[in-house]
Amino acid sequence: MAENWATSESGHDLHLELTGTGGLRAGLMDALRDAIRVGRLRSGIRLPSSRALAADLGIARNTVADAYAELTAEGWLTARQGSGTRVAARAAVSGAAAGRPPRPGAPRLTHDLRPGRPDAAGFPRADWIAATRRALHAAPAEAFGPGDPAGRIELRRALAGYLARARGVHSDPDRIVVCSGAAQALQLLAAVRPGTFAVESRGLPHHRRLLARAGIRTVPLPVDAGGADPAGLSGSAADAVLLTPAHQFPTGGALLPERRAAVIDWARAGGGLVLEDDYDGEFRYDRQPVGALQGLDPGRVAYLGSASKSLSPGLRLGWMVLPPPLVPEVLAAKGSWEPTVSMLDQLVFAELLESGGYDRQIRRMRRGYRARRDQLTAALGARLPQLEVTGIAAGLHAVLELPPGTEELVLREGERAGLGLTGLGWFRHPEATCPERDGVVVGYGTPPDHGFTGAVTALCETVARGLSGPRDPERPERPEQRKNQVAQVNQVTQT
Amino acid sequence: MAENWATSESGHDLHLELTGTGGLRAGLMDALRDAIRVGRLRSGIRLPSSRALAADLGIARNTVADAYAELTAEGWLTARQGSGTRVAARAAVSGAAAGRPPRPGAPRLTHDLRPGRPDAAGFPRADWIAATRRALHAAPAEAFGPGDPAGRIELRRALAGYLARARGVHSDPDRIVVCSGAAQALQLLAAVRPGTFAVESRGLPHHRRLLARAGIRTVPLPVDAGGADPAGLSGSAADAVLLTPAHQFPTGGALLPERRAAVIDWARAGGGLVLEDDYDGEFRYDRQPVGALQGLDPGRVAYLGSASKSLSPGLRLGWMVLPPPLVPEVLAAKGSWEPTVSMLDQLVFAELLESGGYDRQIRRMRRGYRARRDQLTAALGARLPQLEVTGIAAGLHAVLELPPGTEELVLREGERAGLGLTGLGWFRHPEATCPERDGVVVGYGTPPDHGFTGAVTALCETVARGLSGPRDPERPERPEQRKNQVAQVNQVTQT
Repeated sequence: MAENWATSESGHDLHLELTGTGGLRAGLMDALRDAIRVGRLRSGIRLPSSRALAADLGIARNTVADAYAELTAEGWLTARQGSGTRVAARAAVSGAAAGRPPRPGAPRLTHDLRPGRPDAAGFPRADWIAATRRALHAAPAEAFGPGDPAGRIELRRALAGYLARARGVHSDPDRIVVCSGAAQALQLLAAVRPGTFAVESRGLPHHRRLLARAGIRTVPLPVDAGGADPAGLSGSAADAVLLTPAHQFPTGGALLPERRAAVIDWARAGGGLVLEDDYDGEFRYDRQPVGALQGLDPGRVAYLGSASKSLSPGLRLGWMVLPPPLVPEVLAAKGSWEPTVSMLDQLVFAELLESGGYDRQIRRMRRGYRARRDQLTAALGARLPQLEVTGIAAGLHAVLELPPGTEELVLREGERAGLGLTGLGWFRHPEATCPERDGVVVGYGTPPDHGFTGAVTALCETVARGLSGPRDPERPERPEQRKNQVAQVNQVTQT
Repeated sequence: MAENWATSESGHDLHLELTGTGGLRAGLMDALRDAIRVGRLRSGIRLPSSRALAADLGIARNTVADAYAELTAEGWLTARQGSGTRVAARAAVSGAAAGRPPRPGAPRLTHDLRPGRPDAAGFPRADWIAATRRALHAAPAEAFGPGDPAGRIELRRALAGYLARARGVHSDPDRIVVCSGAAQALQLLAAVRPGTFAVESRGLPHHRRLLARAGIRTVPLPVDAGGADPAGLSGSAADAVLLTPAHQFPTGGALLPERRAAVIDWARAGGGLVLEDDYDGEFRYDRQPVGALQGLDPGRVAYLGSASKSLSPGLRLGWMVLPPPLVPEVLAAKGSWEPTVSMLDQLVFAELLESGGYDRQIRRMRRGYRARRDQLTAALGARLPQLEVTGIAAGLHAVLELPPGTEELVLREGERAGLGLTGLGWFRHPEATCPERDGVVVGYGTPPDHGFTGAVTALCETVARGLSGPRDPERPERPEQRKNQVAQVNQVTQT
């Protein structure tokens, strides 16, 4: 038990560690901790006196004595009168406990055409840096304090102006609550409006999961080329409806005017809440963006937006524009999560909005995405002229319609080729009654510029290979139904 | 019903709005939406023909026709053959629904001495701006993509080095999960380790509430000047224990070495988890910081830290260093909330850590807080020499011990004077069995520099006034108990 310092092999390592940057005492403490942790200094071992070690290491005795005292306070060492300083019994750690955890890995893709992601290279670095300089110099000191859970007033003011101007949203700073994105917005709204939510029969499974986890039951509304059909709302038990009116995700239609009216009528008649997920409303290519549904009745619609498509999903910066009575309820629910969005980013983003930098960014990204869309549709038209491409009037993705029974085959080919592709089936609500529809949702925002042409070529080849394989016998062709559907899609996306 | 345009009074406003920045069509659409919203254009009213309005306004007819078509698509207008374009029936909004929501207000304080807040003026604006420039220029494009829920690898690497060096934390990037602060960390850990948590009998009520909301039962451990007493852990049903070992919040003691050892022993014996909330571990004034408990057994301790005290609580930037098996569990629980911390801030903070800017910031803040602490204790010693000040070896707050039965009186005086003060009683666990103890927790980080002297003076005067009032008859003096407690406190804070 009473081993002494000389029989341990730690001297050399200790000495090496002492050349670190944190000062002599800190370096010595680190070296001792490491030696104990990996077992080079075993439990119960007696350390040399501070005088002896100081002489060994050529440092002041006080430095060693202080390090011993600190490590004793931390529980690494024990110091007892007459017995000297020893390594404490519980300080050593087994190799297994100190090992590395497994890290969940993402598949390596040769080309990533999954939807929902913007072009990461499009982030306006120089504009953001300049806005950071201006915003941080201009900010009052309290901006670096705890912060308002509703968000910085500078940002809420700038957003109110921008959303009114660009999206037809009826807004003022007091109706806005800043959040980390649509996911947090849904969690908050689910918390204050528990019950049943009608959702689009094709939509983001992630959002449905979030709602389910919050105790919300979701019921599907049929989706066609004119967006979600609200006809079933009145007879349903829905307390709220979640829609993507500007550009249905993922099928791409804009909600028809009469359906917009019907949704508002339903909300007014029964006190229902409309959740408008305006995830890519700024990106419309062939005409001006369709204004937000929220403008029709700001007292019934909770409008959700974010900077995830226009700047970066890594910002975690989104916003809700709420019916006034919901504001205190949402803030109460949010309270327990504390403000979740960096006040600094809020100040910088406000500056970007006010200076016009954000409008420039939107225009720049819109030009880039439109060019990509045109390249994609031209290539598909040339290589796979028999297939329709729908949902292309807006956004960062398109739907490549496939003959019935071929979606799985195409996806399998994509997997083989390392192509990140998502089938339409993935978005389907499990209780959806609308007909199956084969297709892949092509996110054309995701690949980098230099890889885009390659990604489009790989897509065309993969789909062609998938279509040349054997069909799924369970899902025969339905030519009549198919034709109608496509005609309807074209009608809307081309107006 | 068939009113026509001329009878409405909107022409002038429309014309004014058209001078906006969004282009003629957008300006016209905004003007029409606004006019409808506020009721100047009533439901059913017939708009002039596009030709007539274009002539009135001196703009192209197509611009008007396009605006009408857009607003029809949005549901504001209806267009029917033969009946012209009319304001839709549901488009008008009542004044009440469009009104402003109430905003929860904070009390106006003349001096804010509440604990838990850093000096907002201490944020290193110039360093942050410079680090933003370097970090954003150096970042790869993928940094602006969706991002790793565990946090940016650059930050996890920089944190692993910093925490090992500054806090004696055994860390590597794979053990670290970036989060928005201790609150989110607690929620995540509560989600993966449901059950009973032992907590300090005096601690942050906010944290206890978070745990309760997550379904966790909390049981109190007695707290004295040597931190929480873990003696009761073994017999308890606790699955985990939440501690503030470096500087007990709010009473200010450092966890005694033998208690550190006992906590680790308990965790090893029964598989319990230790949560170490190292909320202000860097700020120790009279000697080097006490190293983290986590270093004693990284396989049993989840270490929680944040930049809230050193930089700004508005950053919403914190971290967990986890036992390896917990990493995938926490990431799975976090997944549903998406990454919650700005990737940009993560890059900038990593740059600040790597460049030494963060160390400089810590030293600067430490100097400033030490000076404030010295000023505070000197003033209290001169004005109220009969009272002890404890917990002053570290952190951003001190405890001013009060005679039994006087805490409420002092707080009431504070309220009258607009002084933000928090009593010790506020922190007490409802099931705590340790003796009542009167005192106020004085956060000396919160006031701005120019207001600090005034805040200290106001504090001295307020306390003196409170003590000169009538005592609470329910809580008589307990001189014996009091003396022991104070002696014990001094013993620890002065080592």
